[in-house]
Amino acid sequence: MSAKKPVPDSARRSERSRRAIYDAALALVGEIGYPRTTIEGIAARAGVGKQTIYRWWGSKAEVLMEAFLDLNEQNQQAASAHHPDVPLNPVSLPDTGDLEADLKLVLRATVDELKDPRFDAPARALAAEGVANQEFAETFVARLLMPGLDLYAARLRAAQEAGDVRADVDPLIARDLFSAPLAQRWLQLTGPLDHAYADRLVEYALYGISARPKKQE
Amino acid sequence: MSAKKPVPDSARRSERSRRAIYDAALALVGEIGYPRTTIEGIAARAGVGKQTIYRWWGSKAEVLMEAFLDLNEQNQQAASAHHPDVPLNPVSLPDTGDLEADLKLVLRATVDELKDPRFDAPARALAAEGVANQEFAETFVARLLMPGLDLYAARLRAAQEAGDVRADVDPLIARDLFSAPLAQRWLQLTGPLDHAYADRLVEYALYGISARPKKQE
Repeated sequence: MSAKKPVPDSARRSERSRRAIYDAALALVGEIGYPRTTIEGIAARAGVGKQTIYRWWGSKAEVLMEAFLDLNEQNQQAASAHHPDVPLNPVSLPDTGDLEADLKLVLRATVDELKDPRFDAPARALAAEGVANQEFAETFVARLLMPGLDLYAARLRAAQEAGDVRADVDPLIARDLFSAPLAQRWLQLTGPLDHAYADRLVEYALYGISARPKKQE
Repeated sequence: MSAKKPVPDSARRSERSRRAIYDAALALVGEIGYPRTTIEGIAARAGVGKQTIYRWWGSKAEVLMEAFLDLNEQNQQAASAHHPDVPLNPVSLPDTGDLEADLKLVLRATVDELKDPRFDAPARALAAEGVANQEFAETFVARLLMPGLDLYAARLRAAQEAGDVRADVDPLIARDLFSAPLAQRWLQLTGPLDHAYADRLVEYALYGISARPKKQE
């Protein structure tokens, strides 16, 4: 289809319904919680028939995941409009040549996002569904978690090439030192989640907590 | 009450029912999964009335948590019977003076436990409930997660006193470098969970991944 072809009315109606369903799903999860959110409730709030939802999605978890991905995209577009230097779809973490500063920037921003109520409620609901439901977990991890983890691995590989990270370090393991502690404090409330925590994580992971230098191998 | 007083029949019956309920809860979660496990199903399998369960517990999550804590205790008693030098209720991690070796031992044992199907199904169900349900999360973290995290912090404090960990390191943050990555790989299947992974985590956390020594402060 040509890009110049006018959008038919039915497509415009579909797009309006889709957005109303996303808004309804995010609002309900924030207001009454994920367990009490139902397809029927989302349909009623969005002003569509529930068959419209079932035609496009298989479960409330799938609706919420697409709504959440869409929310992220909207937010990136807004950030990009205000800061034209921010790429629309980040394909890499910042690389100023200062690995410690770059990682602290990213971890602090992640802390801010995890504590933002607009993100917290749906993201927590999706994580819970992923832990409880093996099949959904694969989708959740592939679409929501892994893209971020891959950015960490790529930044660590670049740091290896620059000589800032030891050549024998496996980036697919080392990235877990940054992402997993944030996720645990966020999901299981095992301690304060703030910028100071993000900074200490980066320092400990980069330089180690041992008072002794690593033994020569 | 004196320890010599004979156990009344009603207490013995209660104890038998309690154990039957624990066994039924663990078996059902393993066989049909947590979402399909109900109080009614547990009662039927245990051969007790569901009022017996409701008299003692408020929800299936609470039944399963107590069953899981009991399973852990049984296992420790069995280990203690075979190895009289293993303390019945571990109050500390091993401290041989070799922090790296001690942490690798503990992390490898944790990997083995997380991959043991008898532990995996109920522990995963409890973690999912904890992520979804804020109120249960507090109980779950306090009774199941925090005791283990506290052992890590205590071992790191001992290592600080021995001069093996830098004095400026916060043990309540540093412990997350060991526990959180294991939890993430276990719960979200973001990569292989094996002894090699446990070993690398310990090495990276102790000595850092940076090729450069930490700047003097």
